[in-house]
Amino acid sequence: MEKRDLLYEGKAKKIYATDQEETVWIQYKDSATAFNGEKKAEINGKSVLNNEISSFIFAKLKEKGIDSHFIEKLSDTEQLVKRVSIIPLEVVVRNVLAGSLSKRLGLPEGIVFEKPIVEFYYKDDALGDPLINEDHIQILKAASLEEIEFLKKTALEINVFLQELFLSCGVKLIDFKLEFGKDQDGEILLADEISPDTCRLWDLETNEKMDKDVFRRDLGNLTDAYQTILNRLRGESAHV
Amino acid sequence: MEKRDLLYEGKAKKIYATDQEETVWIQYKDSATAFNGEKKAEINGKSVLNNEISSFIFAKLKEKGIDSHFIEKLSDTEQLVKRVSIIPLEVVVRNVLAGSLSKRLGLPEGIVFEKPIVEFYYKDDALGDPLINEDHIQILKAASLEEIEFLKKTALEINVFLQELFLSCGVKLIDFKLEFGKDQDGEILLADEISPDTCRLWDLETNEKMDKDVFRRDLGNLTDAYQTILNRLRGESAHV
Repeated sequence: MEKRDLLYEGKAKKIYATDQEETVWIQYKDSATAFNGEKKAEINGKSVLNNEISSFIFAKLKEKGIDSHFIEKLSDTEQLVKRVSIIPLEVVVRNVLAGSLSKRLGLPEGIVFEKPIVEFYYKDDALGDPLINEDHIQILKAASLEEIEFLKKTALEINVFLQELFLSCGVKLIDFKLEFGKDQDGEILLADEISPDTCRLWDLETNEKMDKDVFRRDLGNLTDAYQTILNRLRGESAHV
Repeated sequence: MEKRDLLYEGKAKKIYATDQEETVWIQYKDSATAFNGEKKAEINGKSVLNNEISSFIFAKLKEKGIDSHFIEKLSDTEQLVKRVSIIPLEVVVRNVLAGSLSKRLGLPEGIVFEKPIVEFYYKDDALGDPLINEDHIQILKAASLEEIEFLKKTALEINVFLQELFLSCGVKLIDFKLEFGKDQDGEILLADEISPDTCRLWDLETNEKMDKDVFRRDLGNLTDAYQTILNRLRGESAHV
């Protein structure tokens, strides 16, 4: 496989073409951003950790029958993935109230939901990634009603898997964001990444934050937190 | 019926107790507010027009089998209504893209939807009446899933009725906001008001705005627009 032209540079990753039309080469970046890009930093080592954690989780999901764009980890900071056209939705699953939803509803963080909830945000930086409902998704032609149902069902299945995975290594999965894309056959695949950049993860015993909120809220050393997540996932991986 | 203590003063109405526990006395106000109260004015005659228009529409809805809190018009600015406990949701139905949704989705006003859409906003001034989804409604315990379905179904029925009513007098119903309440038996009733304060109404031929956007956007004389709506409704009422 040959790495070719840069196709796209996002906030956390660069995507390159390869010599195969259906495959792209992802380079994780050390950049950390929050609040729609208002807060930024370069955090040495973040790319390596997120690439490792996301590769680990995508491989585990595949074992459970949930396919994604992930093909293989190429290096410390690189992955080979299937080329997909990203659906412009952030699919958020929440088990416990935190972050922006706590502000939206005027309720304190930490409320445990009776059942997980799913939200859709319109992936558009200029609009600030607004919350939208299922009617809006159809107006935007971002997804059909059938596709929306598939996204919700798949997101909730991934939630069951991730909750178990993290719980088995002493971590509570508070919420997370998924992105999906369509491959060249029109099949919807999980895409982007699953890492402490895209999940809220709290220590089961202490509720210590072990995710991007460490950066958002200046709570300590980000890579220490992400390294702890990786170590726990690795230590427990045999049991999952 | 005797008017007693002031129970509540909102932005557009005062609500008084009566000598009957299950009945309250509503006094429409001349106050106009927009943008969550940031823009304010007193507009002489608005109370009379909204009371008249809302009484007219509630009476028509009753004839069609859609019940509301409305009992009778008492005076130019007063109504007698059933006492309900307001469900803290603004139920918005949209036929054409306008206002805040145009900004949220980054699409121009005027797009006609293939089918009407329904949105829920959490009625909370301090939070800015945020858009919420059906999962959020349940977290807030604002309504059960069954009640949400009832609200949507009823809102869409009201939309069919209002679209016909306005169309018959040369007015396009762009969107509108409803509020519902529970009476003492727990039955859900349409409440609040239906008026040019709560509907977007455009002239069928010219697209001239004949609703609160005249005030929001400084487009001319508000009471002239509301009076035109009332005259058209009255003129056409025999045919509806």
